[in-house]
Amino acid sequence: MKLVIGNKNYSSWSLRPWLLAKQAGIPFEEIRVRLLSETFAADVARHSPAGRVPVLVDGDMNVWDSLAICETLAERFPRAQLWPADPKARAHARSICAEMHSGFTNLRNNMPMNVTAVLPGMGWNVAVQRDIDRIATMWTELRQKYASQGPFLFGHFTVADAFYAPVVSRFATYGVRLPEAAKAYADTILNLPAMQEWIDGARAEHDFLADDEPYRTALDEETLVVANHAANQ
Amino acid sequence: MKLVIGNKNYSSWSLRPWLLAKQAGIPFEEIRVRLLSETFAADVARHSPAGRVPVLVDGDMNVWDSLAICETLAERFPRAQLWPADPKARAHARSICAEMHSGFTNLRNNMPMNVTAVLPGMGWNVAVQRDIDRIATMWTELRQKYASQGPFLFGHFTVADAFYAPVVSRFATYGVRLPEAAKAYADTILNLPAMQEWIDGARAEHDFLADDEPYRTALDEETLVVANHAANQ
Repeated sequence: MKLVIGNKNYSSWSLRPWLLAKQAGIPFEEIRVRLLSETFAADVARHSPAGRVPVLVDGDMNVWDSLAICETLAERFPRAQLWPADPKARAHARSICAEMHSGFTNLRNNMPMNVTAVLPGMGWNVAVQRDIDRIATMWTELRQKYASQGPFLFGHFTVADAFYAPVVSRFATYGVRLPEAAKAYADTILNLPAMQEWIDGARAEHDFLADDEPYRTALDEETLVVANHAANQ
Repeated sequence: MKLVIGNKNYSSWSLRPWLLAKQAGIPFEEIRVRLLSETFAADVARHSPAGRVPVLVDGDMNVWDSLAICETLAERFPRAQLWPADPKARAHARSICAEMHSGFTNLRNNMPMNVTAVLPGMGWNVAVQRDIDRIATMWTELRQKYASQGPFLFGHFTVADAFYAPVVSRFATYGVRLPEAAKAYADTILNLPAMQEWIDGARAEHDFLADDEPYRTALDEETLVVANHAANQ
């Protein structure tokens, strides 16, 4: 099984299935393509007609888009329980994943994922705060409900945690203040060995993607001081 | 089971699960809330914390976002085979649904769903054409592959058809020219009794939503001539 991903520093969509597979202990070969490189379109077109990362290549089956990949992994590896076992909890988990998949536009546009950057206060506006509030409330309620079953949104690690991991990274980069329970959940995700592995991978990259950098024109000193958010907060 | 939807003329997200449930013969009560009405936020908040339509209310279980609703219906009604039975075809169907769910931004922004309008040529640009080409190629290839199994993308009607039904409506409204096989598929969808029922519902509405109307400032004569696209083409 191969997973085609983009830059670890920028590709929030790639992080989702990558983290899910890592957490579930599903072995896969990682194929990294550099976003916006000259060969990107050709590199990705080999794997997906949609022309985007991530793509899962499983034998002669190609699955694209983070959500379809996660659904497919959940089906392929039922023992990993990548969705909650209870139908109502599962429907709830799918709802918040789909909500993330097509929504939170203000947050996504103004605070693009930028794993290694430290840009506190950047990108904030009232519309972004509405997205933040919705997410903080969602995390707080779910943590309250499933506290006895484990440290993740639905107790054990599910697709929902993978889907909100890029948001956790954004909150760290842009110094977003969270209520206590939401902050504790964010730290849980940041401290996962798999998440730290992703961050290390991002740190080893040196591409600068202007489209994903609304707040600066080049990599500066500050960003070279690695943002090991989990350790510093 | 209740399905909370927005205006039939404008709410492309609502059309997806509505059409899926109708085609599958799943009985449900339709609750319509008027988009942008003064009570919209309160009306929807009663059903979903995400504040958007559609929402499926199934007993004490609330599922929001079109994709999570369709996944949940597929699980609840396995005999309806709302996803293709073959795992590879199912992964393919999920891929194109997820691609629609988060992509085709140029098409969606420039040719918003407007069921009863006739606006040929409006919204077109080169980026929109790239989206159109991708969709036309996708439909053509799938129709070729599954021709012997029925008239839909994967033979019988699946979530994938429900997900692309709003695109079919857009292509009719904006007079988008399609290659033969893609056009034949679009006509198949438009001619479904359930799709005609949705169009009739849109026709009975008289709201004007400025945010969804980039090309005019009011309902005009032309739009009152009902766009019965299937019959006229």
